[in-house]
Amino acid sequence: MNKKISIPERTVTRLCLYRRILLMLLPEGRDYVRSQELATLARGSSAQVRRDIMSLGYAGLPSKGYRVHDLLASIGELLDAPEVESVALVGVGNLGHALLSYLVGRRPNLTIRAAFDANPALQGLAIYGCPCYRPEDMETVLANYNIRTAILAVPAGTAQTVAERLVACGIRSILNFAPTRLNLPNDIYVEDMDISASLERAAFYARRTEDDSAAQAQS
Amino acid sequence: MNKKISIPERTVTRLCLYRRILLMLLPEGRDYVRSQELATLARGSSAQVRRDIMSLGYAGLPSKGYRVHDLLASIGELLDAPEVESVALVGVGNLGHALLSYLVGRRPNLTIRAAFDANPALQGLAIYGCPCYRPEDMETVLANYNIRTAILAVPAGTAQTVAERLVACGIRSILNFAPTRLNLPNDIYVEDMDISASLERAAFYARRTEDDSAAQAQS
Repeated sequence: MNKKISIPERTVTRLCLYRRILLMLLPEGRDYVRSQELATLARGSSAQVRRDIMSLGYAGLPSKGYRVHDLLASIGELLDAPEVESVALVGVGNLGHALLSYLVGRRPNLTIRAAFDANPALQGLAIYGCPCYRPEDMETVLANYNIRTAILAVPAGTAQTVAERLVACGIRSILNFAPTRLNLPNDIYVEDMDISASLERAAFYARRTEDDSAAQAQS
Repeated sequence: MNKKISIPERTVTRLCLYRRILLMLLPEGRDYVRSQELATLARGSSAQVRRDIMSLGYAGLPSKGYRVHDLLASIGELLDAPEVESVALVGVGNLGHALLSYLVGRRPNLTIRAAFDANPALQGLAIYGCPCYRPEDMETVLANYNIRTAILAVPAGTAQTVAERLVACGIRSILNFAPTRLNLPNDIYVEDMDISASLERAAFYARRTEDDSAAQAQS
């Protein structure tokens, strides 16, 4: 428990990434991986990789590197809930619908157990196997399944109100797809996934690298 | 042009965020906003906000703050393409489909002009008004519309190959939804949107803050 608390956010982010890379190496039948290779794939330094993995209390062999299976197990021990964990989705519009279809069954330890939408046509349906409830039932449903994490996929205009409601119902962590900034108590974890802002940024850099190339060609 | 090149990535990210906040203030009929208020909404410092806005070459009034309309115009001048800019989407599965429905018409200056999918059933269709092409036509279509930015929504297993193909066809910037790390030349901008990794992280922090509360309750 204390180990979890003491690991900083950026390390957790990198450990999630290492896991994803290790899972990609598995089908190749690889037994060992070196910090240098992990660093290259994760676009970091090998010193960073070694520090991060040391914080898990796991050590590799100097001659061969890290055992892929053991490293995966160590990361899982830190990151995964001891049993299957339930998550809620709020807002089953186009994006929410897609998130359900994308996320259902993707990680065995994380299940989207409940969805909520104000649209009566959706209430009572099971969407990709996930039941959709009325917002009025939020408190009961979240408590029943002991849900502490929510995905917010409602329009920007209602996001703040819905987020406050979620926190009042015991949610501790929100993955926010609404294109707006949530104002919540500091002990609530919020990760913003603002897709259109990211696309804007990507388009900006596409122009910038063109400008660079043009400048280089001229010089 | 040079101004664009010299502004660092984190500043661009924050300017995107300020714009989103300003657009939220508009319907309230607000004329002016102070750096302190922007900082609170963006969860930054007001010194940071002032520095960022200064880098646009825009100055507010010491007595009233920034004019919302003028600040929006200055940010748009930096971030937006001079004319409508075209973007491509590769992979029209569940997630790609949802991204189309979510992004079409969201920003007037950014249009998803072309989609690509290997599934013959989708080729030739217009999905939310966006035509879906065969991957074989990528080079021609991207060149025709002068597309430099792509959204990658293919499975992890094919993402690297498709990304290399995109770069070979002139793409300079990729918004990557595939749950894998792309290995591309350094001058290509890649932004990873790994939804399941973000959800894992959110669930991890939900447990962590519970552990904290439990620890506090015991002490």
